[in-house]
Amino acid sequence: MLLYVCVKGHFMVYSKRDKLTVWQINTMQITNLLLSPAAERLRYILSEDDDMPTPTLFTEMDTLQREGDELEWKESARWVKFEEKVEEGGERWSKPHVSTLSLHSLFELRTCLQTGTVLLDLEGYSLPQIVGEIQIEEGMTSPDLREKISFVLLRRHRHQTKKPIHRSLADIGKSSSSTSEYPCLCHAQSRSMNDIADTPSTDQLKNKFMKKIPRDAEASNVLVGEVDFLNKPFVAFVRLAQATTLGGLTEVPVPTRFLFILLGPQGRAKSYNEIGRAIATLMVDDLFSDVAYKARDREDLIAGIDEFLDEVIVLPPGEWDPKIRIEPPKKVTSADKRKSVFSLNELGQMNGTAGGAGGLTEDEEMPAQHELGEELAFTGRFCGGLYLDIKRKLPWIPSDFYEGFHIQSISAVLFIYLGCITNAITFGGLLGDATDNYQGVMESFLGTALAGSVFCLFSGQPLIILSSTGPILIFEKLLFEFSKNNSIDYMELRLWIGIHSCLQCFVLVATDASYIIKYMTRFTEEGFSSLISFIFISDAIKKMVGSFKYYPINTDFKPDYVTTYKCECLAPDPSEFTPWLRETEGNLISVTDLPHLNVTALDWSQLSKKECLKYGGSLVGKSCKFVPDLALMSFILFFGTYSMTVSLKKFKFSRYFPTKLRKLISDFSIFMSIMTFVGLDMLMGLKTPKLIVPTEFKPTRPDRGWLVMPFGKNPWWIYLASFVPALLVTILIFMDQQISAVIVNRKENKLKKGCGYHLDLFWVGVLMAACSFMGLPWYVAATVISIAHIDSLKMESESSAPGEQPQFLGVREQRVTGILVFALTGVSIFLAPVLKFIPMPVLYGVFLYMGVASLSGIQFWDRIKLYMMPSKHQPDYSYLRHVPLRRVHLFTLIQIMCLAVLWILKSTFLAIIFPVMILGLMVVRKMLDMVFSRHDLAWLDDLLPEKEKKKKDDDKKKGKGKEKEKKKSKADDSEEEVRNSIFCCPL
Amino acid sequence: MLLYVCVKGHFMVYSKRDKLTVWQINTMQITNLLLSPAAERLRYILSEDDDMPTPTLFTEMDTLQREGDELEWKESARWVKFEEKVEEGGERWSKPHVSTLSLHSLFELRTCLQTGTVLLDLEGYSLPQIVGEIQIEEGMTSPDLREKISFVLLRRHRHQTKKPIHRSLADIGKSSSSTSEYPCLCHAQSRSMNDIADTPSTDQLKNKFMKKIPRDAEASNVLVGEVDFLNKPFVAFVRLAQATTLGGLTEVPVPTRFLFILLGPQGRAKSYNEIGRAIATLMVDDLFSDVAYKARDREDLIAGIDEFLDEVIVLPPGEWDPKIRIEPPKKVTSADKRKSVFSLNELGQMNGTAGGAGGLTEDEEMPAQHELGEELAFTGRFCGGLYLDIKRKLPWIPSDFYEGFHIQSISAVLFIYLGCITNAITFGGLLGDATDNYQGVMESFLGTALAGSVFCLFSGQPLIILSSTGPILIFEKLLFEFSKNNSIDYMELRLWIGIHSCLQCFVLVATDASYIIKYMTRFTEEGFSSLISFIFISDAIKKMVGSFKYYPINTDFKPDYVTTYKCECLAPDPSEFTPWLRETEGNLISVTDLPHLNVTALDWSQLSKKECLKYGGSLVGKSCKFVPDLALMSFILFFGTYSMTVSLKKFKFSRYFPTKLRKLISDFSIFMSIMTFVGLDMLMGLKTPKLIVPTEFKPTRPDRGWLVMPFGKNPWWIYLASFVPALLVTILIFMDQQISAVIVNRKENKLKKGCGYHLDLFWVGVLMAACSFMGLPWYVAATVISIAHIDSLKMESESSAPGEQPQFLGVREQRVTGILVFALTGVSIFLAPVLKFIPMPVLYGVFLYMGVASLSGIQFWDRIKLYMMPSKHQPDYSYLRHVPLRRVHLFTLIQIMCLAVLWILKSTFLAIIFPVMILGLMVVRKMLDMVFSRHDLAWLDDLLPEKEKKKKDDDKKKGKGKEKEKKKSKADDSEEEVRNSIFCCPL
Repeated sequence: MLLYVCVKGHFMVYSKRDKLTVWQINTMQITNLLLSPAAERLRYILSEDDDMPTPTLFTEMDTLQREGDELEWKESARWVKFEEKVEEGGERWSKPHVSTLSLHSLFELRTCLQTGTVLLDLEGYSLPQIVGEIQIEEGMTSPDLREKISFVLLRRHRHQTKKPIHRSLADIGKSSSSTSEYPCLCHAQSRSMNDIADTPSTDQLKNKFMKKIPRDAEASNVLVGEVDFLNKPFVAFVRLAQATTLGGLTEVPVPTRFLFILLGPQGRAKSYNEIGRAIATLMVDDLFSDVAYKARDREDLIAGIDEFLDEVIVLPPGEWDPKIRIEPPKKVTSADKRKSVFSLNELGQMNGTAGGAGGLTEDEEMPAQHELGEELAFTGRFCGGLYLDIKRKLPWIPSDFYEGFHIQSISAVLFIYLGCITNAITFGGLLGDATDNYQGVMESFLGTALAGSVFCLFSGQPLIILSSTGPILIFEKLLFEFSKNNSIDYMELRLWIGIHSCLQCFVLVATDASYIIKYMTRFTEEGFSSLISFIFISDAIKKMVGSFKYYPINTDFKPDYVTTYKCECLAPDPSEFTPWLRETEGNLISVTDLPHLNVTALDWSQLSKKECLKYGGSLVGKSCKFVPDLALMSFILFFGTYSMTVSLKKFKFSRYFPTKLRKLISDFSIFMSIMTFVGLDMLMGLKTPKLIVPTEFKPTRPDRGWLVMPFGKNPWWIYLASFVPALLVTILIFMDQQISAVIVNRKENKLKKGCGYHLDLFWVGVLMAACSFMGLPWYVAATVISIAHIDSLKMESESSAPGEQPQFLGVREQRVTGILVFALTGVSIFLAPVLKFIPMPVLYGVFLYMGVASLSGIQFWDRIKLYMMPSKHQPDYSYLRHVPLRRVHLFTLIQIMCLAVLWILKSTFLAIIFPVMILGLMVVRKMLDMVFSRHDLAWLDDLLPEKEKKKKDDDKKKGKGKEKEKKKSKADDSEEEVRNSIFCCPL
Repeated sequence: MLLYVCVKGHFMVYSKRDKLTVWQINTMQITNLLLSPAAERLRYILSEDDDMPTPTLFTEMDTLQREGDELEWKESARWVKFEEKVEEGGERWSKPHVSTLSLHSLFELRTCLQTGTVLLDLEGYSLPQIVGEIQIEEGMTSPDLREKISFVLLRRHRHQTKKPIHRSLADIGKSSSSTSEYPCLCHAQSRSMNDIADTPSTDQLKNKFMKKIPRDAEASNVLVGEVDFLNKPFVAFVRLAQATTLGGLTEVPVPTRFLFILLGPQGRAKSYNEIGRAIATLMVDDLFSDVAYKARDREDLIAGIDEFLDEVIVLPPGEWDPKIRIEPPKKVTSADKRKSVFSLNELGQMNGTAGGAGGLTEDEEMPAQHELGEELAFTGRFCGGLYLDIKRKLPWIPSDFYEGFHIQSISAVLFIYLGCITNAITFGGLLGDATDNYQGVMESFLGTALAGSVFCLFSGQPLIILSSTGPILIFEKLLFEFSKNNSIDYMELRLWIGIHSCLQCFVLVATDASYIIKYMTRFTEEGFSSLISFIFISDAIKKMVGSFKYYPINTDFKPDYVTTYKCECLAPDPSEFTPWLRETEGNLISVTDLPHLNVTALDWSQLSKKECLKYGGSLVGKSCKFVPDLALMSFILFFGTYSMTVSLKKFKFSRYFPTKLRKLISDFSIFMSIMTFVGLDMLMGLKTPKLIVPTEFKPTRPDRGWLVMPFGKNPWWIYLASFVPALLVTILIFMDQQISAVIVNRKENKLKKGCGYHLDLFWVGVLMAACSFMGLPWYVAATVISIAHIDSLKMESESSAPGEQPQFLGVREQRVTGILVFALTGVSIFLAPVLKFIPMPVLYGVFLYMGVASLSGIQFWDRIKLYMMPSKHQPDYSYLRHVPLRRVHLFTLIQIMCLAVLWILKSTFLAIIFPVMILGLMVVRKMLDMVFSRHDLAWLDDLLPEKEKKKKDDDKKKGKGKEKEKKKSKADDSEEEVRNSIFCCPL
């Protein structure tokens, strides 16, 4: 029911005549202008004083309502960035949503601003005075009308504030829901001229909403209403010279800068409301609020609306129901980007896209480039990288400490601590097995604590957590076997390998060798970290399955025949009895060592299972092989811990409880799950396997001390020959360490304090030597735990406008959590009485969670999931918009095959050259250049840096393209007139 | 960069002069018109021939692209209702999304239609001919240009079709992603004038997308492109007189009706694209497509655009990122509603909202009224209700059978069957306990099969499932105790109660007493069904906890001391031995009954636990009291079945696998979970308690037959006195039955075949008597299983346009599933060999799921959850928009308290008057009228029907209000002119 006429790029003059409007469109004079006059105006006003940012605007819309006999202004909506509406009946705030406007109301608003009073930079100090000023400007003569308008505008304002729940009980008995917040002022006599207090009320001051509004904010108040004494609308737009608190006008004690008043004749309240919503939405628009602050006259404001209209997004009425409130998007085009259109230097570009719908342009053809930054630049100087690392990290040292003091750190410390000691115990146990207890759980604890805390104190990337890793375990195992078979002293050999490896690390540091990490792309990184995650997952499950073997279930048990199940210890047949030696559980025990026992006089039926076997008895009976309940209980604990952690993590996104509580629950999810299942275990009282921590500070094997001597036990040539195995260890450590570092330093983590690849490697080398001297295991960065560490320290923006998504700000980069974790690991020996309540299956559940959690967020894993999704259900990943699905699948398939090969190799003795195989991954990646186009790889992976030259060539080509475009745009100019004649006004 | 001028409600005349356009706006002549000329035009064309619905339009947009040296048209987007875009690089269809347009492109399109060629009802049979016609109409003189345009327009069309995955392997080696679908036609010489085949290609015919397009659909083709030989755009809009298949023009073999062509000079491809998207979006708009079909001239089309513009929804650029693809909404305003604006009789109303933003109006103040329909009307005639019920149901009988043959029925039958036999076994066991096996599992099975199948065959609502219920169980228990204590024959007494109750039911049927169900509102219904759900849940959990008591776990078990655990049967001390009688397990067994045993000569150590106790031995040992593994295994089975069912049900909403497969998995979730855990149980081989079904067809108690005689065992007055307990049973049955029926017949279930409250009650009465004669339990509608039955039979629309939400169509109302379920229950006695593998904990898991599932979708439950949600996270329930939260909470609190009272009463002997307490709920509801306003209750509950009179009063008031409004609108008319002068054109 409207007719619109568009006039693009033309200047418009209109003169007013009786019943006839003549639009003079002077095309010729302005065809050489590249911008429309509206944009031209905006460019002019926005470019001046650009150094002073305009304050954020809080907009409140109040509508005039009749409450009994009394008129009052009732808050009906508010905007910080998105709209929040007062639910009429619900007496509460709606969820923040995107304001959906009608085109109609925007045009009506435009007319309002064209015809109404516009007062810019009014010196106002109180509402009555401002109203008076408007009336003078308006030229309102009738004193009666003036008084009536003033009266209406100065009615009191009722704001939507929370009504405490306990009041609802008092409401019982009132069957009407029209309970009013304020005492009723139902006597018409008491109508004072000014209901608005000069100072903000306590309600205003106490309003908790204040914390959602930025400190520097100013208010814009929109007042709309219908009255019976007007026959034409009374419209005013006021900008005050100074933001002033106008008493109870605004819900929050924020000074008012803008005032929009629309009073109109009765019968069109809905329409007025829509106009009010339109101006309110405009006021919170980044661009228009700038215009409003800087406008010199009415025309500037109208230009602002026109510019806004040019950028709006239109939804067809048949495809969208306007009743649906649109949830605020995760990300919107930044205001700066929108404003930049008006800066002079981008004029050329603008012309190119002038015809494009504002913002509807496709995203760029190529994704942002993979950049590892200057940290990995090859300096070419001796220790150049190390020097730069130290120089880079030094200024952050103080903040590395004080930034650690935050509640979040506690949960992070607990989480990582549990991960670390579980790891320490697991690897300690395995190392003890592999090295005949030369390195056991005790050494593992001590080493973890020492290496970890030193690394966290001095390293370049303190977020990395050091731990024993699988490849090292396998190396130690092979080394021990080798030295045992060749009668070489293991500890001394190991020391020399450590020394050599340390020196080799120093060489790598001095020559900036970490430079080659640059060639590691997403393909390699994700392959490596997925592999580590799979190892975590499979280890956790293996352990679980193991407990079913360790505690076999008697599946033939019939409750009724309980009488037939027993296990008796029978004395050995005396004729076969060998009283001297009997091997039990790998140790040789001579019976004569136990002088207090007279073997023949033993009461065999009173012996425990172990004792019975020890003394050569044999166990007879149906129940001997079986252990009831423990396996199933272990499974319940394992699976319960895992699923509860997953559920609690997800709880952050549920609707229940306030955001802060949910965040707390989510942060402490692992801790809470552990506590719950430890509690359940204690409640059941079953003898599930528990965490056993060494309680005495002494080496696991009594025949070794805390220090290994470098000379004396092996021939001299061993000292030199150990250079060769050391080389293997060095490669192993270098790869393991640096890939983990690359993963930690990923751009997605938004680390700000820079990384220190060279410095890290330096300290790992130092610790290698130190640990070798003390006979402790070797340590290197642990990918999964490091990722968990980072995840538990992620920060999100707190006070965002209602509806705005909290932004991921980065990670709490500090050294405190790491140090605390390792300090705690060190003193765990004294925590044994507490720790002994934790069942091992619970810890395996945590392991499983860690493995699964570190898989999420890996693009490779997302791509694997794509295999199972029909294409129409696939998420809108940006690479899917740009790379054909079958190419994506092919890429994933290659990656899967690579991992499968690595997995198989890892399971054999070749595991020792595992890190070298990562190099193999890099070679495969290089070969992919032949299978996939640069375009596809740029989306699915990163481009390899050696292509620097090619890239430049590309840039050049692009440059040429641009030139071409420019030429074209010139051609455009000459054709502009022609096109205008076609696309705009039918001349 | 645009200037728009709005001219509302005015007629516009423009004359074209050199460089000067004069807009003559003649205001005076048309102020009396209520509609703008655009709307007036639309009203005119839309009102004619309204009986012929216009076909659905499938719109395809092709853009001109250069492939090598060759030009070709490439499909870039398509619309059925929502937009699907071809992902440039992805070579695939995007998800269907709402088309977000720019205002700019819509205005450009408007200009295009104003200036371009418009050919309506062209007799076209092939593309070359049509192009020729356009050129004649255009008045194109240059033969060179004509040929060039024809050449471009007749290039071949490349459609986006699926590329099979196996081809991707062939792509290895091609490092460019620009692989083409069709053989390259890279020789410029072969340029024929017409690349388009006359008949559809096989690709077109085989296109599976066809099934997404309605049968009667016609196509509209949008062709946009930039060419180098034009200096002004070539625009044509063609409507063919007959829809014609124009060869390979369209992706699918759908005849083309509309053709929009836009060829323009180079450099503005993006802009042309946007214009193409705009016209395509318009073409699929319900209203505009109608206009396009019926337009008489160019001006009609432009009026259509203007009308569209007036209704569009505008999103502010600062609050929304246009790159985000908006998911199609669940519901959009129907086209009919939008069209109705143009029908004459709603003119008055329209005027009232003319100013309102199209569609932005709030939803109505009061929700739709709760209506139970004429089924429950009080006829006032003898058996009037019953007669109407039969009359209503009779025509549906045939469809009740043939509609049952559907794959979905299988899953429903399996699901409900398992629920039924579990119920039959549970209640059978409990009844056996309560009545000393007068009614046992056998009777329960037989009764369920008999009553259920009869009811499903003849009842008014065959979706209702009959079952034993808790209150009846308690009644039988009390009755048995009473008759035992007073030496009255239980079976005969029960028979008489049954007969009386049956007669009472007939009286209720004859007097249309089901009428009072009308007073049952959501409050009562949901209270009742929640209570039943809670009972289900608590029963399932109780059973589970019970298994921990039945299979106690030895928590002190130490694996090492396995030797000390045993359980031996010791012979009783001969001095205390009483050889004659010993009570074991509630039965008296005389040892002398077992002549084959010589008690003193028994080998006591070889006896089983039961035998040992039977012969008076005592069990000694640490393991006697305990049963290993079974309790934990039961828990795993129970919890596993429940959680797997829940996860599989949710799987329907996941992204994996095609929709059909997911639906299948979701439909069979319970069956699959049962199978999985039965499999697990078999794998473990533990002796978990299994489902035991009687295998022989004979009464549980040997001293009773299959028929109960009415006379002989009790004194005559008992026959009369049993009227009193029968009254209780009748109330019990009446309430239980009819509340379940109301819940089943809820409007949300969209049942189409009507209900039959009176008929249902009649059959329940008949079955009461029949069961009493046969000594079987009594049966009544079971709420939870009936809801499960309905849920498993829900239908959703299949072929909806891409992006459109499948609509819930209703329930497969038929008698086949019910009959099959009960037939299966009957033959279950023969299925025992299969059923015996099902562990009971699995069935308890199913019970738990049933209870939880029937809670979801209950508003009461939603409201309870609100307690735990901060108001800003609460879902957008419509009642929350209209009722203050504290009133909602208060209402919920009262409901919770009522349920708590009922729960407590249910746990005592008062359970027998449980159904009477439902009447109490109705009284509470009546009292709520005093606490809550009608407005609040209308939103939270339903209004009670007795308020009919009041309602009428309200209507009257509303009527007055409307009159007032009308008066107002008249006033508006007189003020119209004034307002126009202010809101539209500044005169």
